[in-house]
Amino acid sequence: MTRKEITEQIFKKKSFLCIGLDTDIKKIPKSLLDNDDPIFDFNKAIIDATAPYCVAYKPNLAFYEAAGIKGMIAFEKTVEYLKKNYHEHFIIADAKRGDIGNTSAMYARTFFEEYDIDALTVAPYMGEDSVAPFLGYDGKWVVLLALTSNKGSYDLQLTEDKSGEKLFEKVLRKAQEWGNDENLMFVVGATQGRMFENVRRIAPHSFLLVPGIGAQGGSLEEVCRFGMTDDCGLLVNSSRGIIYASSGNDFAEVAASKAEEVQQQMQALLPSFK
Amino acid sequence: MTRKEITEQIFKKKSFLCIGLDTDIKKIPKSLLDNDDPIFDFNKAIIDATAPYCVAYKPNLAFYEAAGIKGMIAFEKTVEYLKKNYHEHFIIADAKRGDIGNTSAMYARTFFEEYDIDALTVAPYMGEDSVAPFLGYDGKWVVLLALTSNKGSYDLQLTEDKSGEKLFEKVLRKAQEWGNDENLMFVVGATQGRMFENVRRIAPHSFLLVPGIGAQGGSLEEVCRFGMTDDCGLLVNSSRGIIYASSGNDFAEVAASKAEEVQQQMQALLPSFK
Repeated sequence: MTRKEITEQIFKKKSFLCIGLDTDIKKIPKSLLDNDDPIFDFNKAIIDATAPYCVAYKPNLAFYEAAGIKGMIAFEKTVEYLKKNYHEHFIIADAKRGDIGNTSAMYARTFFEEYDIDALTVAPYMGEDSVAPFLGYDGKWVVLLALTSNKGSYDLQLTEDKSGEKLFEKVLRKAQEWGNDENLMFVVGATQGRMFENVRRIAPHSFLLVPGIGAQGGSLEEVCRFGMTDDCGLLVNSSRGIIYASSGNDFAEVAASKAEEVQQQMQALLPSFK
Repeated sequence: MTRKEITEQIFKKKSFLCIGLDTDIKKIPKSLLDNDDPIFDFNKAIIDATAPYCVAYKPNLAFYEAAGIKGMIAFEKTVEYLKKNYHEHFIIADAKRGDIGNTSAMYARTFFEEYDIDALTVAPYMGEDSVAPFLGYDGKWVVLLALTSNKGSYDLQLTEDKSGEKLFEKVLRKAQEWGNDENLMFVVGATQGRMFENVRRIAPHSFLLVPGIGAQGGSLEEVCRFGMTDDCGLLVNSSRGIIYASSGNDFAEVAASKAEEVQQQMQALLPSFK
């Protein structure tokens, strides 16, 4: 999916919401557990209910791998279901992969060729040749970790070098030599507040995937104030706050109303709809 | 597996070789392709032939994921086969995972509880809470990326902060506040040569997993000269140089003789057998 196509969807739906499909067999309604594939059935219900309010879905691979082979089948079925029924939604596999060149190339083939997913989260620690193999696919995206939403982000990502450049700033700067605004996004956590100003100084036009609103406590208003570009430039993710808003049989309905609530907030913050 | 058990195996076998099971359906002998599960059959033959010469196996998840559900079944069968028939061999899942706390906890459960694997490679970029969930399992190990063997390792890992500390040195130092010599190893590439002196200054007793000899060009002698401890403290990995040494029907036999060759070099370099 091209940047233009993503942006068109954002302005059409007046939403830049990405819904994280962190589907945990221990957290889904008990009434689903007798089904043949409860994980897929949960995802399908969530997707059908929330699709009008979001532009992207982000299945987190950890949750599918944790359920073994059955989990990976549910993951594949979810991706197929999205591609068949909601082909205008952007799909991000949250896998945080990254390895030496020949191994990254294997991961790229898996996610971009086999699954035909639009984007993959990638960890930057191993440098250019660990990221580059993911950048060679038309219409596919690397979403590179820059400044994450968790407490541990301070341990390494804020380390300043001799010139005063922070590690995440170096990641933002160097990675733009490897990719461009049409195949490279960055993860910046909503919990990082004004740090979005630093991010935009170095990556003024890059799309950002922003986790950390909802359960993790980040502010949507703050993210938009410091992070939004003319064409939005943001995909803001919410997972637990939407998909587990109710643990009853009304889970999909309540998820939809939570998603709509966020969409309404986003509509008010989008430049052309202010 | 405890450090003591790993060390006992090393001195019993006079080997600190880890064999990387980077099993690629495109590279295994054509004669296996008609089998029901060619990936597992290849691994089984390699394991049976090489087990006397190595102390660890390291399946690289990228290669199994690339083959989809079938690949993951082959991965599970390989782990089960090792645990049943070669329980004294240390098993490292090379997956380079690392995510926010609750997600890392899911990965930890998958690899340490479901698969009951001994060790998992983990990426450090997201900091303490992304690593800590893997450290809470008795006899299980985090193998944290510190200084990798690829060209891109220079992009970020050598960045010096204001005090002159390099990023990989900070990873080595900080991580030892999170874990200890009994649950935490580090990845240091064989291609890094004398940089092992810096590593040993900061992590004098930690076990190191060392990729990069063979196909990537690192020197075993150099690694031992600068990296070996009294109880060895090294697991040196070779993947392609052993498992793909022959593409014919004699692949297992040739792999065994390559593994034995490396074992002989290791025997000459181990402290008690010098």
